[in-house]
Parts: sequence; C-alpha cells; structure tokens
Amino acid sequence: MATKTEPTLADIEAARERIAHHARVTPVYGSETLLRESGRPTLLKAENLQRTGSFKIRGAMNRLATLTAEERDAGVVAASAGNHGQAVAWAARELGVHATVFMPEDAPMAKVEPTLTYGAEIVLGGAGFDAALAEAQERVAESGATFVHAFEDELVIAGQGTLGLEIADQLPEVGTVLIPVGGGGLAAGISIALRALRPKTRLVGVEVRRDGYTIADGIAVKVPGELTMSILQQNLDEVVTVNDEQISAAITLLLERSKLLVEGAGAVGVAALLSGEVGGKGSVCAVLSGGNIDPTTLISVLRHGLTLAGRYLVMRTRLVDRPGELIKLTRLVAQQRCNIVQIEHRREGVTLEVADVGVDLTVVTRNEEHCQQLIALREQNGFPVQRLG
Amino acid sequence: MATKTEPTLADIEAARERIAHHARVTPVYGSETLLRESGRPTLLKAENLQRTGSFKIRGAMNRLATLTAEERDAGVVAASAGNHGQAVAWAARELGVHATVFMPEDAPMAKVEPTLTYGAEIVLGGAGFDAALAEAQERVAESGATFVHAFEDELVIAGQGTLGLEIADQLPEVGTVLIPVGGGGLAAGISIALRALRPKTRLVGVEVRRDGYTIADGIAVKVPGELTMSILQQNLDEVVTVNDEQISAAITLLLERSKLLVEGAGAVGVAALLSGEVGGKGSVCAVLSGGNIDPTTLISVLRHGLTLAGRYLVMRTRLVDRPGELIKLTRLVAQQRCNIVQIEHRREGVTLEVADVGVDLTVVTRNEEHCQQLIALREQNGFPVQRLG
Repeated sequence: MATKTEPTLADIEAARERIAHHARVTPVYGSETLLRESGRPTLLKAENLQRTGSFKIRGAMNRLATLTAEERDAGVVAASAGNHGQAVAWAARELGVHATVFMPEDAPMAKVEPTLTYGAEIVLGGAGFDAALAEAQERVAESGATFVHAFEDELVIAGQGTLGLEIADQLPEVGTVLIPVGGGGLAAGISIALRALRPKTRLVGVEVRRDGYTIADGIAVKVPGELTMSILQQNLDEVVTVNDEQISAAITLLLERSKLLVEGAGAVGVAALLSGEVGGKGSVCAVLSGGNIDPTTLISVLRHGLTLAGRYLVMRTRLVDRPGELIKLTRLVAQQRCNIVQIEHRREGVTLEVADVGVDLTVVTRNEEHCQQLIALREQNGFPVQRLG
Repeated sequence: MATKTEPTLADIEAARERIAHHARVTPVYGSETLLRESGRPTLLKAENLQRTGSFKIRGAMNRLATLTAEERDAGVVAASAGNHGQAVAWAARELGVHATVFMPEDAPMAKVEPTLTYGAEIVLGGAGFDAALAEAQERVAESGATFVHAFEDELVIAGQGTLGLEIADQLPEVGTVLIPVGGGGLAAGISIALRALRPKTRLVGVEVRRDGYTIADGIAVKVPGELTMSILQQNLDEVVTVNDEQISAAITLLLERSKLLVEGAGAVGVAALLSGEVGGKGSVCAVLSGGNIDPTTLISVLRHGLTLAGRYLVMRTRLVDRPGELIKLTRLVAQQRCNIVQIEHRREGVTLEVADVGVDLTVVTRNEEHCQQLIALREQNGFPVQRLG
C-alpha cells in the first residue's frame, strides 16, 4: 500500500464541494443545562441529525466521489457493523455504485436494517469484526472492488474534516472543541481544518475507557491508525477519557433537555465536560458525532440514568403474610403520589421470618428528596426498608 | 372580557419581529423512512428543537413583549403543568418579568423542574388542572398581574402563527401540512399564515382520541376555545383523529430513525400520516410541536413499540423442576443469539403439573422472523411456548 499522507485544508475544502449536495450542514444548539452544570457556555454540534445518523457519510461520500468510472463499476466493499457500513451503503446508493458490507453474524438488527434499506448487499458471517474484515478483504482480492477503510484513508479523513469547516463558520469564537476519538478519522479531519483556520482553539480528543464492554460501541473496539495517530499527536492539545457511567448520564441529559438522541460514542464530549476534566476556559463545542443507539440499549441507559437521579426507587421491604398487608403498603405509596412500575413477592430467603413475605417495589419518584420522604413514611408505618436502587 | 378578534397575517408578521431574537427558526428534515412507509415525501418541522422544547414560547413571548411597562411590573400568571407553563416562565425571564405558574399538586418532576429553572415562582396545589386554574385566577384578581391564556388569546395565536411563516419560507411547495390540535392555538395561528400565503396548501388538524388516559397529554385535556374553534372551522380542510397505539409507533419511529425526541402531542401528525387517513396527494409536512416527554413514559412507549415490531419477545414456558433444566432452556436462547432481559420462575398456577415450574422469559429479538425461529427451536426441544408479547 502506498504511504499515506496527511490531507491539507485544501483537500478538506475540495471535500466540502464534493459532498455539498449530499450531506447536511448540521445545526448548532446552545444548552442552558450544560452551561449551568459545567459553568462554561456549551454549544452542541448536532451531527446526530446528519443523514444516516452519523458523520461517517462525509468521509464515505468524499471517498466514493473520487473513484474513477472503472472503479465505480467494480463496486465498493466495507467491513462494519456500525455507522461506517451504513454510510458506505448510503453514499454508494447516492452515486449508483454497488456496495457490499461485511458484518459479524450477530450484528444487531438496528444496524443491519438501515444498511439493507440503503440498498447494500450485506454479508453476515464470522464470529466477530475481525472475521468480517478478513472476508471483506478476500472479496476485494477476488473482485477488484475498492475497499473503503473507516478512518485510515486521506480522502475519508478529509471528508470528516468538513465538519471542522462548519464549526469554524458557525462558531468562529469558540474556545475549545471536544471530539470523540475511536479510529481517529473524525478527530484528525476536524483538527486539520481548525488548526489551519482557528489556530487558537483548544482541541480535545475524548476516548472511552477501553476495558471490556461499553455503550460507546462506535468508538470502543477501535484504536487510531498510523496516519490518524500521527495527525492527532500533532494537533490535539489534550485527550480525556470517560467511562460508561458518565456516558449514560450524558445521553440521558442530551435526550431529556436537548431532545437530541445521541449514541454512546457521540455523547463522550458532553460526558468529558461534565466530568470537570476538560482543561481551558470559556466556551466549549461538543461534537455529537452520531445518534445510532439501539433502542433496547437506550432503555437500559435511561433506567440507569433515572435511578441515579432519584427518579426511580427500588426498595425491598417485609410484611406479615396475611390478607390486607399489601393494601397498607400500596396505600402509603399512593399517598406519596408515586406510580408503581414493578412489584414482586418473595417467600424464600434467609433474611425473612417464617410468617413474613418480602416485597420488592420499583416506583417512579420525583427526585432524591421524594425517595427519602417515601422511605421515611414507610418506616414510620412499621415497614422496614432496604434500598436496592 | 372584550370580544376577541382573529389575528391577521400582519399581526403574525409583527409577532415574528418581536420574537426574532428569542425563538429559534427550527429546521426541517426529510424522512426517507416516512416516504417509504406512507408513499408521500415527508418533511418534519422539528419544533421539538425549539427553546424550552415546544412551540409555546412563540405565543408566550409575543404576549409578554406587548405588555406595557406597568403591566410588566405587575407580573404574569399562568396555569399549566406543561409546555405553556415552561414557555411563560422562560419568556418572562427573557424580558425580566416576574412569572407565577400554578400547577396541580402531582405535576411530574420533568415539568416542574425546568419551569423552576427558568426562574418562575411555582404554586403547586389543588387536585387537578381546574383547581390550579381557579387559584391562578384568584391570584390575578388579587394582584393585578396579567393572566396569560394558553391559546384563547389573539397575541398568543399570532405568536404560534410565526411557525406558519417559517413553513411558507422553508417549504413553499408543500402540498399538505399536519398540525396537532389541542386548545387550537397552534393550528389557528399556522392556518391563518398559510391560508394567506399559500392558499392551495391542504391544512389538516390532528386530534387525539379523547377517551381517558393518553400519552399525548399536551393536547389531551383541552378542547379548542371559542376563538380558536371559529378560526379552525374556516381554515382546516380536514381533521383526523389518532390513538395512543399509533402515537407510540410514531414516537418510536421518529426517535429511532430521525434521532428526534418528540412528545405524544408532537407525534400525532406522523401518526395520522402512518394511519393512511390523511387526504390529498403529494408532499406532507408534519409539525413536530414539542419534545417534552417524560423519560419514564418514553421507556414505556419504546418497550411497547419494540414489542409490536417483534424486537422484544415475552414467552411463557414450562419445564420439569429438576437441576439442569434451566440450562437447557437458556442454551437454546443463547444459540439464537438472543439477550435475556428478564426471567421469572413460577411454581403456583392451575396450568402447571405438580413437578413443573413455569418460566416467563423476556428476550431481545431482531424481528418477527427471529421470534418465530426462537419459538420453533424451543418447541422442537420439548419446551411448550405460550407467547405473551
């Protein structure tokens, strides 16, 4: 493979021309809640509202738009169970090119279905991403199709850099920009654009802690490539790492207060801001890089976020096993205007007396104060309470 | 009270000037998914991204901006546990006016907290909305503050009408506009603007079925006022009614595919479109009027929507009560690459043999086909399955 060189501002400007009729210029929104919570004016670059739900079409479109007629006829291949696969499928359809996307066999439906809808051929197979990648490369070798890498490619990086041009236009005065880092293509592209146009802006990469499962699956399994790493080392002022707990809180806040659905990888900038570990002063722009979160994951994230905020209360109590006792208990809950989400009786367990029954209750509460009131009311009425969440 | 007269296009244009530095011009997004599902090009007016999360600040700001200096000093009063209360609180803060918002005592925290954050005084009391309204009117009588009605007010209607001016600018060619109808202020305002500027556009009001509880709480408890009703009767071509099932599906689709969080009342237009009952042909604009849905409600809506789409499977099965049986069962689930969300053992119940135990399993599935495969696999292996959802 030929040595790859860093794209320049001119390359990024050329990319902007190429993708102009395809990609959206995504909006920027201020967030009062984040100003209050972080003490810094916060602007959200809502790239989750991009077509296909992520920034990836900028790079994919720039790559595909520069194929020769012959290359277009031979089609393109990608290996991805995520945003890159959707982006390549979408860009290929826009340009009338055949795309084949290789995915691991248990890729979630929420990813498979849109990619299919954009008209790509999908090959499900292999036990994980590496197997899918190997199959993709085999296909490329056999067929002469062009492999589209998710980040280690000058044209892809230049395409992602167009997001940096938009930030330079929309927020000429912003002090700090927070950019998610997975493979590093987005951060590399944005940093080249902003280093050239806004040399004083502080550029912060945000990574997710790489230890096992994370909800930021879009950036979790990747490490920057050789080219992207070299660009990031030159251009980033700082790298901050966040964990799933912080990301969950950020997703919940963005959804509830800004009405924006943001995936784990897209919420890391806000998570970093809320952690207090972002250096510098003054205004901050967080790049919300995508919104493709699986709804079942979203439900778990919201439940967790709401429990942390005292808006769900899970508690275990004991009552004597005779008619009427449960009525007393539920009356106390109703008296506090709480809605019961789940109720469970337990008869087995060493902590229970013979004539006792254990009851686990999950209720919707207003806030931590409300939880405390409910617990106190129950204890005053003779029901011991153990808080589980 | 003086007889109210209908606002004119000029009143709405004046309102646009007044609110220009406060309200956002919200974006419009096309939706491929809705084009595919409805057969009509569909544009989403994303007013859920308005400040405070709903269109209500347009009317509230226009009303407050026209108060005399003396009236401003006396403050404003509103009765609302919802978007109108937040909007009045927000507009009052923008203009440095004192606002008091009366709410029923069990108003959800998701509504109380933002209103507090905007600096309004909140009076919680009374068993329902009517009690809060009576208290608000009492306060007005005592204090000389101005009561801001949520819809039955020329200036409020003119303010909401600015959304119609934006549609005329952003979508000059659109064939049909779908507008939620609760109190009717939004639909009245938009219809006046569009009747004047785009006389050929088909205007459709969308109501929620008014029989008990609904997730479209923003428009559920209201009926149009005398003034708004008279405007709607002149201007609307059609009124369509939708139910909670349709609204849930619309909320889930908008969130998952467009990354937009939309409340029940804001999703009725899309629900109507998907019902196939909207008349006319060609392109459609659905006004997504707000995004203030309680997260606990959202979780229920998503669970329901996913179950309908075959992406959750709830099933009851029986196994012999001896060690190792549950392993067999869960191995079959793992073999189908399904994630278990919840598992429950039952030993009581007339449908069980003495030595049997009932097991209720909730698993994440890909789609209906995947559900069927899982059920078949279990039945082949001797586990009878009763589907619960």
